[in-house]
Amino acid sequence: MLEVKTYPAEALREFSERLLARAGLPPEDAALAADVLLAADLRGIDSHGVARLRGYHEVLASGRVNPTPEVRVVRETLTTATVDGDNGLGLVVGPRANELAMDKALEAGSGWVAVRNTNHFGIAGYYVLQALERDLIGWAMTNSSALVAPLFGIGRMLGTNPLAIAFPGRDEPPIVIDFATSAVAFGKIEIARRRGVPIPEGWAIDVDGGAATDPQAVYDGGALLPIGSTRELGGHKGYAMGMMVDVLSAVLSGANWGPFAPPFAIEQEPPGRVGAGIGHFFGALRIDGFIDPDEFKGQIDHLIRTFRATPAAPGTEGPLIPGDPERAAEAARLRDGIPLLPAVAADLEALASETGVPL
Amino acid sequence: MLEVKTYPAEALREFSERLLARAGLPPEDAALAADVLLAADLRGIDSHGVARLRGYHEVLASGRVNPTPEVRVVRETLTTATVDGDNGLGLVVGPRANELAMDKALEAGSGWVAVRNTNHFGIAGYYVLQALERDLIGWAMTNSSALVAPLFGIGRMLGTNPLAIAFPGRDEPPIVIDFATSAVAFGKIEIARRRGVPIPEGWAIDVDGGAATDPQAVYDGGALLPIGSTRELGGHKGYAMGMMVDVLSAVLSGANWGPFAPPFAIEQEPPGRVGAGIGHFFGALRIDGFIDPDEFKGQIDHLIRTFRATPAAPGTEGPLIPGDPERAAEAARLRDGIPLLPAVAADLEALASETGVPL
Repeated sequence: MLEVKTYPAEALREFSERLLARAGLPPEDAALAADVLLAADLRGIDSHGVARLRGYHEVLASGRVNPTPEVRVVRETLTTATVDGDNGLGLVVGPRANELAMDKALEAGSGWVAVRNTNHFGIAGYYVLQALERDLIGWAMTNSSALVAPLFGIGRMLGTNPLAIAFPGRDEPPIVIDFATSAVAFGKIEIARRRGVPIPEGWAIDVDGGAATDPQAVYDGGALLPIGSTRELGGHKGYAMGMMVDVLSAVLSGANWGPFAPPFAIEQEPPGRVGAGIGHFFGALRIDGFIDPDEFKGQIDHLIRTFRATPAAPGTEGPLIPGDPERAAEAARLRDGIPLLPAVAADLEALASETGVPL
Repeated sequence: MLEVKTYPAEALREFSERLLARAGLPPEDAALAADVLLAADLRGIDSHGVARLRGYHEVLASGRVNPTPEVRVVRETLTTATVDGDNGLGLVVGPRANELAMDKALEAGSGWVAVRNTNHFGIAGYYVLQALERDLIGWAMTNSSALVAPLFGIGRMLGTNPLAIAFPGRDEPPIVIDFATSAVAFGKIEIARRRGVPIPEGWAIDVDGGAATDPQAVYDGGALLPIGSTRELGGHKGYAMGMMVDVLSAVLSGANWGPFAPPFAIEQEPPGRVGAGIGHFFGALRIDGFIDPDEFKGQIDHLIRTFRATPAAPGTEGPLIPGDPERAAEAARLRDGIPLLPAVAADLEALASETGVPL
């Protein structure tokens, strides 16, 4: 059994904030980045929260990422813009670009911002939750370093390229959609390897393009598969979706797309450069640009209740609404604290003693 | 062996146009609708072309669809609008609403139009190809009568809800993404049933929510599965995507969402009404609102060539670019004519003799 250590959310947030400030981020940016990280830990997306603090710390310490970026708009219309993140943390660049998309939407009905020269931005869900607070429908996407094979291809050509969008309810909680366009998260391969158990067919291929059932094969030159996995089950659809996210985030902004996306925090270098950093894409729509917002939210409530009332498939408790598992995790973790794997807890303690920032 | 009869594209287009005009559509609308139908037949999406003419003819003849709709904008901002299709054919309402989204994008950078009180709009790909002609990135979605189960649920709760988006290349042909959010098209179930062969696990469930391998089980109260099929392979992602399309198309516009979407051309009625007709959602983005369009297209060319050069998985010819199969079909069918299944050809001949419109 792994012994899990639990930390109060506020303690982790404060530790992140202080650590990032010590790495050179201005106070306001350190607080913002800590909020984005905490959102991942609260919502149960453990791979995108404080587990990455070591990585963020290292890219800042090594000078690979700029702690004090001048985030600027390089092209703009009333409702669109491209933002250059000046090689800042995505945790800082992302929220600012998203803010711009939301401002444009409030002014003109819709706002769309592509971002280049940026880095890993945390969970896509964070950004669309921000939009909900302004009564907007928010979209967020990002490309990332290549891990996913195109259908019929061998090799890592696309990131896990997540897409998020959220819709507010009236009395019901919002629908919060946030998923990677790979069949599974890389974290599931890691867990299987650690446990020494095989992975199901449809998750990944090996270096020769055959179905991988040994998780080690994914590390040894294999790749994840897109949603849909195989041609027969619709893998061309997941592949197309991953490409859509890459084009909107990285080609439209002038960032590195597909296999050229620079990696997060590790030394391995992509085959070259075709742009600057990785890319994000944010959108926002005013609900009242289409329909009375109260009417919209009432229908969302009705939809949520209708789907919850669908008879349950054998062995399940019935359909969930997108966002349910994350909301349940958040309630539990605000109450009971955030459980960290021993390796992650040990790493944070080490970071604390290395830097003198108390945890 | 099925004997396939082949028709010149122009003959089918003209037949559709005359038949729809005879059913009461104004000449301009009949020509437009015939174009949309032909696009499906040319691109090899046989289920969405003239094979549906009988259905369109019937809904018009029975008065279920309005041949002379007054398509009107019911709410509008500079960059958003909701259009009421006045219960017209989606083949007529869809192109007009898409036009409005494109006009708004040309004026303000982006344009988004939700549509209610409309009907089946043909292939989503048609609309994004229209946007390419104006050098815009186009999006198109629609909901449709329920056929797909939510993950963990039993029963038909979502349409096959397609999503399309396209990106222009410079010397390479465009990337044209157009897929339904179900694991497979219903047509594949039909084909398996006709041939008396089982369907693979992951396509559908039976009336009790178990995996269906007999195609008849899908007809007998079963349902298609979303992309990703099972929880293990990411079925929650396909389910979320189908819900996203339904909300944007139908809830945002005030149409019937989910299980309430009225069916195409058949008598079976949904459990009630929560809005008007089905819904579509169109978007358009100016490329030069983000980046120099020539630079964008040059990178798209580079991306296309990079993905084509990916080593091929065993037993395949390597990755395709989204839109490749449809483009190949179009070239062959413009040259050799459009092959129709005997049942479809016989049905068109019958329509011709019933109506006096020559084929």
